[in-house]
Amino acid sequence: MNVFDLLDKYGSPLYVYDEAILKNRCQQMKEFSNQLEKGLPNNISVQMHYSQKANSNLEILSIVKDSGLSVDCMSPYELMQAKKLFNYSDNYSDSDKLLYVCNNISSHEMKTVHENGVLICLDSISQVETWGMLFPNTEIMVRINPGTSGVGHSKKVVTSGKETKFGISEANIPELFSVASKYNLHIKGVHWHLGSLFLDDKINNYIEGVKSGLEIVKKYFSGVEIVDLGGGFGVPYKPDEKPLTLSIVVQELLPILQNVVQDFKSIKSFKFEPGRFIPCEAGSLIGEVTAIKHENGIIWVGTDIGMNQLVRPSMYGSYHEIEVVKHTQYDSPKAMVNFVGNVCESGDILGKERLVFIPKVGDAVIVHNAGAYGYSMASNYTGRPRPAEVMVKDDGTYKLIRKAEILN
Amino acid sequence: MNVFDLLDKYGSPLYVYDEAILKNRCQQMKEFSNQLEKGLPNNISVQMHYSQKANSNLEILSIVKDSGLSVDCMSPYELMQAKKLFNYSDNYSDSDKLLYVCNNISSHEMKTVHENGVLICLDSISQVETWGMLFPNTEIMVRINPGTSGVGHSKKVVTSGKETKFGISEANIPELFSVASKYNLHIKGVHWHLGSLFLDDKINNYIEGVKSGLEIVKKYFSGVEIVDLGGGFGVPYKPDEKPLTLSIVVQELLPILQNVVQDFKSIKSFKFEPGRFIPCEAGSLIGEVTAIKHENGIIWVGTDIGMNQLVRPSMYGSYHEIEVVKHTQYDSPKAMVNFVGNVCESGDILGKERLVFIPKVGDAVIVHNAGAYGYSMASNYTGRPRPAEVMVKDDGTYKLIRKAEILN
Repeated sequence: MNVFDLLDKYGSPLYVYDEAILKNRCQQMKEFSNQLEKGLPNNISVQMHYSQKANSNLEILSIVKDSGLSVDCMSPYELMQAKKLFNYSDNYSDSDKLLYVCNNISSHEMKTVHENGVLICLDSISQVETWGMLFPNTEIMVRINPGTSGVGHSKKVVTSGKETKFGISEANIPELFSVASKYNLHIKGVHWHLGSLFLDDKINNYIEGVKSGLEIVKKYFSGVEIVDLGGGFGVPYKPDEKPLTLSIVVQELLPILQNVVQDFKSIKSFKFEPGRFIPCEAGSLIGEVTAIKHENGIIWVGTDIGMNQLVRPSMYGSYHEIEVVKHTQYDSPKAMVNFVGNVCESGDILGKERLVFIPKVGDAVIVHNAGAYGYSMASNYTGRPRPAEVMVKDDGTYKLIRKAEILN
Repeated sequence: MNVFDLLDKYGSPLYVYDEAILKNRCQQMKEFSNQLEKGLPNNISVQMHYSQKANSNLEILSIVKDSGLSVDCMSPYELMQAKKLFNYSDNYSDSDKLLYVCNNISSHEMKTVHENGVLICLDSISQVETWGMLFPNTEIMVRINPGTSGVGHSKKVVTSGKETKFGISEANIPELFSVASKYNLHIKGVHWHLGSLFLDDKINNYIEGVKSGLEIVKKYFSGVEIVDLGGGFGVPYKPDEKPLTLSIVVQELLPILQNVVQDFKSIKSFKFEPGRFIPCEAGSLIGEVTAIKHENGIIWVGTDIGMNQLVRPSMYGSYHEIEVVKHTQYDSPKAMVNFVGNVCESGDILGKERLVFIPKVGDAVIVHNAGAYGYSMASNYTGRPRPAEVMVKDDGTYKLIRKAEILN
């Protein structure tokens, strides 16, 4: 892509997605489910539900759908997006296509889910009680907490273990059944999520978590049809990280699933909820170098990419690879620099201590792996509109897939 | 206020502002500047520029203006808001009313500022160079870094000292003058900002910072007309914190300013940039209790207030006082609970280990001191619309001052 053409045409900063990478990641997820399906009895299906919160741009969702993947949602807006995606006329209440996997929602919101006929996954006994009072004699899924220590790139995203707000722990499952039976709720499926962003070195932890989850299923949930293993498939953010080897995950996982379905004839499908894995590497956030300052032995590269446009570095201390693109050719020494944004907060740091050619004002920066939790977490803090989003198509042409915001 | 009436009428969650508190804080700031002005020679004025990024709701800005305060802005949108505020016909280019205090802005944005005739405060030599090339022979302000260790509630908001992206340090001031003189830029004012949120126990640090800043002004900036001491006036978030005693700040500050103006006849005004102090305590975020869960010895109170609606606890680990309002009267034991939101991230925690009466589903929570950096930092993460904002007027009536967002 020509960064400067893009910035000229669509404004700076700008989210840019590479359709080929996006399609490839969708295909990898589809292939992952195919591999598992092939190894399982014919009557058992495997669905990959893309977790919209990573990036809910409708064009991205369309590619997800066209790749044969399903989606999940966690708010009325995401549900509306999913309905648009499946063109209303499709049977969007089919749980093979769509799930509502949520946390601490209001009774008002439960009504919206129920009206739309979407299978809901509830994550506490309290939520099951509220649902039961409103809609007795219905089907639900429940989120359990397998109790293992979880996996995650930051404590803020580890979603299994003792110190998390999510799921029902084993000790409380008898109470769950008592509440479910009070309202004649049929527990159709069980879900858990171990955390976010595991790579090859954490496959063992992931597998341990899956085993713990399945032990709980076997012990308590006879008759269950759906087992949803959540997401967590990681991507390499740092230069020394390697992509997740999905074939190893399949190899480790398949015998475990084969074993479960032998004893457990009610299971009809396994589900996964990849989020980040799908759009992350396809997306970049590009922007402009606006200042170079040398102060107290530190080189600061100012850009127009603030924590309002990409909050991950500021929020989680996340690493994003940053590339400098020169506007004109010049020689420049390499040095350690801090990339920062244009927000008046010291925490507005895009990348610390990066060894790069020292740029000039007017050069561009490409922040890589910004396709997930980039635009979706952006805000208007300090009165900045959210940037446009552009898709670089397979044939090299550009398509504007969301206009830059206009604040008024 | 009747929390349940408000939630019924305007939806949940909801930002609510108390006009009386807001006006009181504006008056306190006005009184602060009056006290300083009274102690200074007649020809010297003191302006309080409210920093819009804390909360830029136009109704709040109107009260700020009606209280005789000025504003500052840091983006084209904030500039547009300020112009609306001063009704276009007013002389908004008057630096007594309006300043553009920014960080790492593009040349495109500089053009917008220049077209609007607003005095700009530039925070690096690099930005001065860019401005000079575009608009030689103009007036500017510059941001210096007084080099003291700064004050702040989190490392993310300390904006003075060696490890900050802000300002020009003393060592680089000769270079600043050389660049300014190359473009015949007149440095009309000097600004610094020490950090955010100081209370009585940090007044000494604040005063030390002011002294360091003024030393630099005296040493290098002869002929300067404006000295802008930035913001940082804190508010008590925790129950054991006391409000800032502004009279002590005046008492400590006045002799220092009196001393400076004796030697420094060019100074015509001192400026301050309070942000948080003005709307913080006036604002609450109210919402609904959606789940109570007891897991692994921890009590989790689920609410519909996620990190997308109020990011401070999740982002900075900030403390906000949380009050439970019962929907119906019942007896309930006190216990330690964690308040959490409805976002599928473990970091989505509103308040940890709070000793409260254990609420029930359908009760309400009031998150206090949410008037600053609340709505302004909110996002649509997980597809949640930003809530409405309501002002409780002096006479007890409500006024909708921003509609709830509709995502589509």
